[in-house]
Amino acid sequence: MPSRRECANAIRALSIDAIEKAGSGHPGAPLGMADMAEALWRHELRHNPENPDWPDRDRFILSNGHASMLLYALLHLTGYDLPIEEIRNFRQWQSKTPGHPERGVTPGVEMTTGPLGQGIASAVGIALAEELLAARFNRPGFEIVNHYTWAFCGDGCLMEGVSHEAAALAGTWGLGKLIFFYDSNGVSIDGHIDPWFDENVGQRFMAYGWQIIGPIDGHSSKALDEAINVAKAEKRKPSLIICNTHIGFGSPRIDSEASHGAPLGDDAASATKKNLGWDHPPFVIPEEIYKCWDQKAQGREREDAWNRLYAEYGRQYPELAAEFARRMAGKLPADWRKTASELLAWGESKKKDMATRVASRHCLDILVGALPEMIGGSADLSGSVGTKTSSSTPLDCKTYNGNYIFYGVREFGMGAIMNGLAIHGGFLPYAGTFLSFTDQARNALRLTAMMKLHVIWVMTHDSIGVGEDGPTHQPVEQIPALRLVPGLNIWRPCDSQETAVAWLSAVEGNTPACLVLSRQCLPEIERPGKMVEEIARGGYILHGCSGKPDIILLATGSEVHLVMDAARLLEESGKKCQVVSMPCTEIFDVQDQAWRDKVLPPDCRCRLAVEAARGDCWGRYVGLDGDIIAMDNYGFSAPGKELFVKFGFTAKNVAQRAMNLIEKSDGQKQAF
Amino acid sequence: MPSRRECANAIRALSIDAIEKAGSGHPGAPLGMADMAEALWRHELRHNPENPDWPDRDRFILSNGHASMLLYALLHLTGYDLPIEEIRNFRQWQSKTPGHPERGVTPGVEMTTGPLGQGIASAVGIALAEELLAARFNRPGFEIVNHYTWAFCGDGCLMEGVSHEAAALAGTWGLGKLIFFYDSNGVSIDGHIDPWFDENVGQRFMAYGWQIIGPIDGHSSKALDEAINVAKAEKRKPSLIICNTHIGFGSPRIDSEASHGAPLGDDAASATKKNLGWDHPPFVIPEEIYKCWDQKAQGREREDAWNRLYAEYGRQYPELAAEFARRMAGKLPADWRKTASELLAWGESKKKDMATRVASRHCLDILVGALPEMIGGSADLSGSVGTKTSSSTPLDCKTYNGNYIFYGVREFGMGAIMNGLAIHGGFLPYAGTFLSFTDQARNALRLTAMMKLHVIWVMTHDSIGVGEDGPTHQPVEQIPALRLVPGLNIWRPCDSQETAVAWLSAVEGNTPACLVLSRQCLPEIERPGKMVEEIARGGYILHGCSGKPDIILLATGSEVHLVMDAARLLEESGKKCQVVSMPCTEIFDVQDQAWRDKVLPPDCRCRLAVEAARGDCWGRYVGLDGDIIAMDNYGFSAPGKELFVKFGFTAKNVAQRAMNLIEKSDGQKQAF
Repeated sequence: MPSRRECANAIRALSIDAIEKAGSGHPGAPLGMADMAEALWRHELRHNPENPDWPDRDRFILSNGHASMLLYALLHLTGYDLPIEEIRNFRQWQSKTPGHPERGVTPGVEMTTGPLGQGIASAVGIALAEELLAARFNRPGFEIVNHYTWAFCGDGCLMEGVSHEAAALAGTWGLGKLIFFYDSNGVSIDGHIDPWFDENVGQRFMAYGWQIIGPIDGHSSKALDEAINVAKAEKRKPSLIICNTHIGFGSPRIDSEASHGAPLGDDAASATKKNLGWDHPPFVIPEEIYKCWDQKAQGREREDAWNRLYAEYGRQYPELAAEFARRMAGKLPADWRKTASELLAWGESKKKDMATRVASRHCLDILVGALPEMIGGSADLSGSVGTKTSSSTPLDCKTYNGNYIFYGVREFGMGAIMNGLAIHGGFLPYAGTFLSFTDQARNALRLTAMMKLHVIWVMTHDSIGVGEDGPTHQPVEQIPALRLVPGLNIWRPCDSQETAVAWLSAVEGNTPACLVLSRQCLPEIERPGKMVEEIARGGYILHGCSGKPDIILLATGSEVHLVMDAARLLEESGKKCQVVSMPCTEIFDVQDQAWRDKVLPPDCRCRLAVEAARGDCWGRYVGLDGDIIAMDNYGFSAPGKELFVKFGFTAKNVAQRAMNLIEKSDGQKQAF
Repeated sequence: MPSRRECANAIRALSIDAIEKAGSGHPGAPLGMADMAEALWRHELRHNPENPDWPDRDRFILSNGHASMLLYALLHLTGYDLPIEEIRNFRQWQSKTPGHPERGVTPGVEMTTGPLGQGIASAVGIALAEELLAARFNRPGFEIVNHYTWAFCGDGCLMEGVSHEAAALAGTWGLGKLIFFYDSNGVSIDGHIDPWFDENVGQRFMAYGWQIIGPIDGHSSKALDEAINVAKAEKRKPSLIICNTHIGFGSPRIDSEASHGAPLGDDAASATKKNLGWDHPPFVIPEEIYKCWDQKAQGREREDAWNRLYAEYGRQYPELAAEFARRMAGKLPADWRKTASELLAWGESKKKDMATRVASRHCLDILVGALPEMIGGSADLSGSVGTKTSSSTPLDCKTYNGNYIFYGVREFGMGAIMNGLAIHGGFLPYAGTFLSFTDQARNALRLTAMMKLHVIWVMTHDSIGVGEDGPTHQPVEQIPALRLVPGLNIWRPCDSQETAVAWLSAVEGNTPACLVLSRQCLPEIERPGKMVEEIARGGYILHGCSGKPDIILLATGSEVHLVMDAARLLEESGKKCQVVSMPCTEIFDVQDQAWRDKVLPPDCRCRLAVEAARGDCWGRYVGLDGDIIAMDNYGFSAPGKELFVKFGFTAKNVAQRAMNLIEKSDGQKQAF
């Protein structure tokens, strides 16, 4: 029977071999955390390698994602569909073993990690999801939702600000089934950390309301087992197990940053294996060690037991079981079309002018009332951003009832926690803040998009229309900068009807979406007919003309009204205008060529785009012969209406610039 | 003699009046913090209202910037050039009293604040600057640098992750002259904070190594005076004074979020003044209260004393005094041209191929050796990003010697602290991290740009060229997204010569700059002659042709080499190519029309841009007839060279796409 250390050494050996073969990677952390991993994954973690999607599995997040080989070794050894060929293929094109763990690529990898701190922050969202679902679905004798959320993290994760935001909330929320292992090895890339990280981490987390365990010897199986038991015994506080470890354990580069981010090299790799008493060829794990690690039978048994429980639950509570299944599958309810119709009907109905942030709140009233999976929130701007609806009830941390989260002033943490809620399954998270503060959450949004999570952001106060709060609160570069993030749909509706369609798209779309909304009141557009399907194509002709237009005016959001007024002025001067509303460029760009050519006829080069944001990206629609009215610089503190005038966002100026363009275009034509 | 409370009430009255008149603003915080402000500004703060630029003034940062009227009232009352008309003009177009404090707009405002948490984070940088300058310039009997850095902050500031990053470093660095007043009023915009902010803030800061004072009664002048004395007595730790206060003090909306962000309204404003016993007309401060507040005479006296000391210092240490004056003025040294020449000569010299991050390190070796104001650092990636030079010595927190800061894994905090170093004066901060992690610091960079601070970022690992670390570490949207931030110069050089010019521009430019650099080795370009001045124009013809080109190939950084190779292939097929290297679009865009037309001849519409990043913004250079080879989506984990091939970044593909474009363009010409 191999010893626990020998089992841990299998992780170490695979990590060394894979990193040597790849010629790059991070050996220090897998070598250092192997004993922690052995304690958790061989003796505690409740999972089924044959079904990584078992709803009630324990969740494990490797927040220090550069230790990816640790996770791949664990998945391989415990029996996931990750054969040794994949380990040999570490970090290669189309392997299942990329340099950092990626959700959707490797069976058993819950989350994409790499940017430090975000793993533990999302783990907070995962653990919250568990408590919320348990409160909603469990019944006496039927704890169908009852799992732990475990995360490994390193010094770097705890230096990052997002660790503060998320850990503070985890403490406030009393997430007793959230357990972090802190790999405290005293070394980060720049060396021994004392000169830049000498805080008392335990004291900090105690201040958040966590249970602190340790520091323990992170290489002692006994200490680790005990710590896990203590962690589990505490039901009302999350636990931080501080594990003193040695980075590069076993290697000649132990306790040195030299082991962190590069292969050990032949000599040091051999020396390490010798130190560890590991004398098997590369990528070879002795059968008896495989046996010790294999969790397939146990996993099957565990899931079978749960399946039996769930089947009985289904008999006693058929509606609950169906609802749980629906939510975990991320499907909309059977009567969704009714809700969608209600939403669109509200959008089309006659009503008074309103800000799109207000229109959005009306939409949310309908949606949140109908979709129990929607869990809302705001970074301390609930009233301003309109995310708290008539159906919203604040999270109660004693009962875990509620569908609304006060995240506090923590945009980045909010983004990462929403990712966690979506990763767990069973929720459609949405939350809001001012558009200019979404900067703080940008890397969380990047991970949302990279993981293709269904998360919706409500970003209000979308331009100089913010007015008196001034340039710090007036977005200028945020709209185009968000459009650059691959996989995000950015909606900037111009009125309540476009807002309703944007929400419909965001909910049905199953991809991340951001709604960019005005603070200020906007007129309702009188549309010639029902335009729902056209709006849903991201860009459409809001106002057409007969024959070839003299000019195409493109705009989004609040500027649509401006170009409509300008079109009227131009038409009074006998010019033919085509007004294009482009609420979502991402969706417009993937429409068929015929639609795109109809909206932007290729033979009309006379095009003017108007958006109260940086205009750089509109060049690809208006070309070298077109013009752009945009914000080249920051705004000012003054009433919003005045700012629009000062910065040239008036119908008169738009019409004048359009006229200049038409004249120039005519001149060019004559020159041909 | 007015009481201290009456003096504080002058702040309250001005705040109410200005906010009522503006019809918008945040009364709650000025009402709540007025007594804190009275204690600090009337009894402690060492400043000279007649010279806001006195180098040795105490620095004051209002981190909860929405309380701007508190600060404007203080500046007005103590005698700064901020007449009552400006207070009456609060939040109006071109007033000196914008909605949130803005550096450069209002005399006495040190820093633009509004995004919560960044004020205290930059205050850490300011306090560090003071210690570093003191260590460098003070001599026995001549403490010419000896001031405090004070900051007010609220609950929101302390929820934000950046507060963690910066406060942890302040503790580690032992900044004894940094003192925060925490306005602990238990209320944020969403209401009473217990459900989202119940951490023990004192315990948290104690974990960072701070001195904790209080909680005290933030409305008791005596308690505040004592706390200030205790704070100043501690020389080796920063201090946090926890002040229990009432938001909206004196108003009917006391202790309620209703007082936070909207005018009180006529009735409540009157009631508040009545409660406070304030019976003067709006905007009228009784003369005896003005007298109590007036700090002009005392300020003049204090600065005079310092001026006398500095004059004597200048006699005894003429070189030091000249150097201090030079650094505080932000001027380059007298022998700068020599350094610049050395830098450019290195750039032009024959040398082996290298990554631009390595070239940058060589440049920094020259620059840091010559410019003592340069203070470098990295977010725990010193070796990878090449910011630690042969002249760099790590910060020693006992002596405050050193010119290199290990910031730890704290990108946002690093950005905010660099802002603080620049705000203080005497330093040219630069620091580096991986480009994809600059996302975390984006809002700090926005404030850098908005304040026009001279701060330089070194952003390496700039594309899929990163390779095996995979998509989390491979920037895709970051380059164009940074270009969208108004006021930032983004340099992406293609080899060591362009890197040297980029550094020259960044150092001489006196505006914020980002150097975007390759991880991978790049060939050295053989240039026909000296091209320094052309490179410095941001975009230039690297390879020309005689007559009108058939195609213009544009690229930046690593892709320049690719298009050079493609041009060779095209020329073999008889096509005339103009290759444009565009290392800095911001600088190119402000060149005169003649230069821009030379580089991008208007009559050549056949243009192909190549950049391994999102291509959306290249449309404005290539137009509707051009083409863009770019990254539409995230990268993959695999060797970098392989990724360039897989994503179509090969000379062959560029040449093919160029050829297609030429043919299409010819076809169009024939059709004309």
